[in-house]
Amino acid sequence: MTAEIITIGDEILIGQIVDSNSAFIAQNLNKIGISVHQITSIEDDKSHILQTLEEASVRADVIIITGGLGPTNDDVTKNTLCEYFDDILVNNEEVLEHVEELFAKHISTPISNLNREQALVPSKAHILFNKYGTAPGLWLKKGEKVFIAMPGVPFEMKMMMELEVIPKLKKEFKRSFIFHKTIKTYGLGESAIALRIEEWERNLPVSIKLAYLPALGKVRLRLSGKGENEEELKLAIEHEFEKIYPLLEDIISDYSGDDDDITLTINKLLVAKKCFLAVAESCTGGEIAAEFTANPGASNCFKGGTVTYATQSKLDILGVPAGLIEKHSVVSAEVCEAMAKNVKKMFKSDYALATTGNAGPTKGDSDAEVGTVYISLATPEGVFSKKFILGKSREQVVKKAVAKAFEMLLKELNGK
Amino acid sequence: MTAEIITIGDEILIGQIVDSNSAFIAQNLNKIGISVHQITSIEDDKSHILQTLEEASVRADVIIITGGLGPTNDDVTKNTLCEYFDDILVNNEEVLEHVEELFAKHISTPISNLNREQALVPSKAHILFNKYGTAPGLWLKKGEKVFIAMPGVPFEMKMMMELEVIPKLKKEFKRSFIFHKTIKTYGLGESAIALRIEEWERNLPVSIKLAYLPALGKVRLRLSGKGENEEELKLAIEHEFEKIYPLLEDIISDYSGDDDDITLTINKLLVAKKCFLAVAESCTGGEIAAEFTANPGASNCFKGGTVTYATQSKLDILGVPAGLIEKHSVVSAEVCEAMAKNVKKMFKSDYALATTGNAGPTKGDSDAEVGTVYISLATPEGVFSKKFILGKSREQVVKKAVAKAFEMLLKELNGK
Repeated sequence: MTAEIITIGDEILIGQIVDSNSAFIAQNLNKIGISVHQITSIEDDKSHILQTLEEASVRADVIIITGGLGPTNDDVTKNTLCEYFDDILVNNEEVLEHVEELFAKHISTPISNLNREQALVPSKAHILFNKYGTAPGLWLKKGEKVFIAMPGVPFEMKMMMELEVIPKLKKEFKRSFIFHKTIKTYGLGESAIALRIEEWERNLPVSIKLAYLPALGKVRLRLSGKGENEEELKLAIEHEFEKIYPLLEDIISDYSGDDDDITLTINKLLVAKKCFLAVAESCTGGEIAAEFTANPGASNCFKGGTVTYATQSKLDILGVPAGLIEKHSVVSAEVCEAMAKNVKKMFKSDYALATTGNAGPTKGDSDAEVGTVYISLATPEGVFSKKFILGKSREQVVKKAVAKAFEMLLKELNGK
Repeated sequence: MTAEIITIGDEILIGQIVDSNSAFIAQNLNKIGISVHQITSIEDDKSHILQTLEEASVRADVIIITGGLGPTNDDVTKNTLCEYFDDILVNNEEVLEHVEELFAKHISTPISNLNREQALVPSKAHILFNKYGTAPGLWLKKGEKVFIAMPGVPFEMKMMMELEVIPKLKKEFKRSFIFHKTIKTYGLGESAIALRIEEWERNLPVSIKLAYLPALGKVRLRLSGKGENEEELKLAIEHEFEKIYPLLEDIISDYSGDDDDITLTINKLLVAKKCFLAVAESCTGGEIAAEFTANPGASNCFKGGTVTYATQSKLDILGVPAGLIEKHSVVSAEVCEAMAKNVKKMFKSDYALATTGNAGPTKGDSDAEVGTVYISLATPEGVFSKKFILGKSREQVVKKAVAKAFEMLLKELNGK
């Protein structure tokens, strides 16, 4: 069973927003055995929408549309669907009641006719309840093809997928199974990995696909399969995993297969050791702490940290000796190690990461070249540092520094 | 002049990654007067790629393709382009030299034949130099239509757009002008705004489009136009802006039109006042600091902050009195205000934001319901707090809390 996703809204086509909805929808369709054949983003334009609906319905069984259901004039999806299904808009009492209740309880401005018109829906549509917003979702059929329209506001769409769309798809269709297993590696490029596993890859059964997903110093390898028998499919993929594992053992950072973020892997290792982390960030500006605490359960292994952005704050807050900064400059291994040691003591943690560097675009309180970053790791046994040159783009420098910091900690926790 | 973007890679269709490349490409095409008609994501599949290329070339003048140019077997774009252009792969000496140099200078693993094969390119292609990677970009023509293939690795693609694609498009084509102006509002929903500006919107010239972009408590309004005369176009949009401004004056947070993030607006206001900010974060886990320091120039108005995730750290690091926590619980206005006041003193800043709350999914060191967040703002004059109930999704709670914190600070700086 295949689906296509159509996202409607000029804001995607002018690059004002990134389309994150499609990834969420695709993930959740995959989980119930529906693969996504194509994702198409188009503007709020009636004729383009009609053409895209027609093309998608030739290729896929389920067409999922997001966006263009709002109350304002630039939203044309509902009227366009009416034209496509040769339908008219009718008032839906239940939706109207919900919109009125939302306004009465949660919205400070008075309800208007524009809001009430959200209750106008195509007469042939089954309504998908929007618990968190005023635009209802729509489920329409043309022959055997299903068309599902959802609002584009990410949170509303996500809740509607979870509470309405996925359960209804599961109930109405017999689907096959899709299974992915992801192996995360670090320290080797994709072509070097490809050479190592060349023979294994050549012998991979046609039913299992291998994909390489390269990113900053990390390559994820994904094994994917689709089949009618869930157990057989999983076994086949696990079987291939057991063959690839010894070939890559020294560079695998995680093979739980659930595509965990590196922070989650670290979280689990710290909790298993009953250890806590603290961080002292300068050039990474809080991003290490923010990424680490994005996982629920961070409180079981994370004490906290400091963002000492200004040089003076490194003295005042972290107690880095002024003489050390004067002697080695604020961007140096010595200062970074002092930050790590001191933050570990302050927060009474077992491990501590520290960063100091120059993310650019101009030089800061030191003469270090833009892109120079020191990362230090204090452990129960001592402290050590690495120096990195991470390019000229501020965003990239921060991103890479955060990745490197987590890699250093992961290696240490893995005893490598 | 119109373009279409085609992104190739299974990872987008299974939702493993979000397609951020397209937004970047679209933004940069818009800046030189090329509008994007459609964005299509498809898997690494020869026949699907061929069909998509054919369809896109009917609708658009420029077809930009990303992804599938890597050295491994799952990358099929280069061979597929050969088939589409009835071409063969030939070795390019310049690319080979570059690949060899990259390996010699920056990559620790030895170069392999897979890497050298990156220098095989379609004979009809003009080469787009990839300064930061081994896969060259390709520029091909079929009649009047231009096809541009770039690697999918975001950083490599971005640099290639900037250094190669945009300059070449500017040189080879006469383009019209596209101009967007974005007005950011807060505190009012899109339908309430639509009612306020109803009459103005009705009288908007057809050449100017209005879009509503709603997000958590904020609505961005975008005026867009396309034309042959840059000056006339800008004047027409500025003229409409002057008419809409008085209708929305009380809810506009930013109208610089450059779609600045709220953090950048705050940055500018703080620098103008010669004031500095510090932050004391609990449930937001460093995200406020990270977002604020994502802007270059943060060091001119940001001292730093603490992430006191564990309750004990609030005592140890910020000196919040244990009695206060005992009496009011760790998630309370009283504790939050103490955090803000103390971090302001510690970092010798003029303003300080503090957060404490429960982001979920389970209750932490307090009895506060999941989603409860207090935000305090210490100013040169005093300190005040607000309580928010921000839902049950951890990610959403953090995101909304960060947005609310910046809104509180912006209002204060604007003297509202």
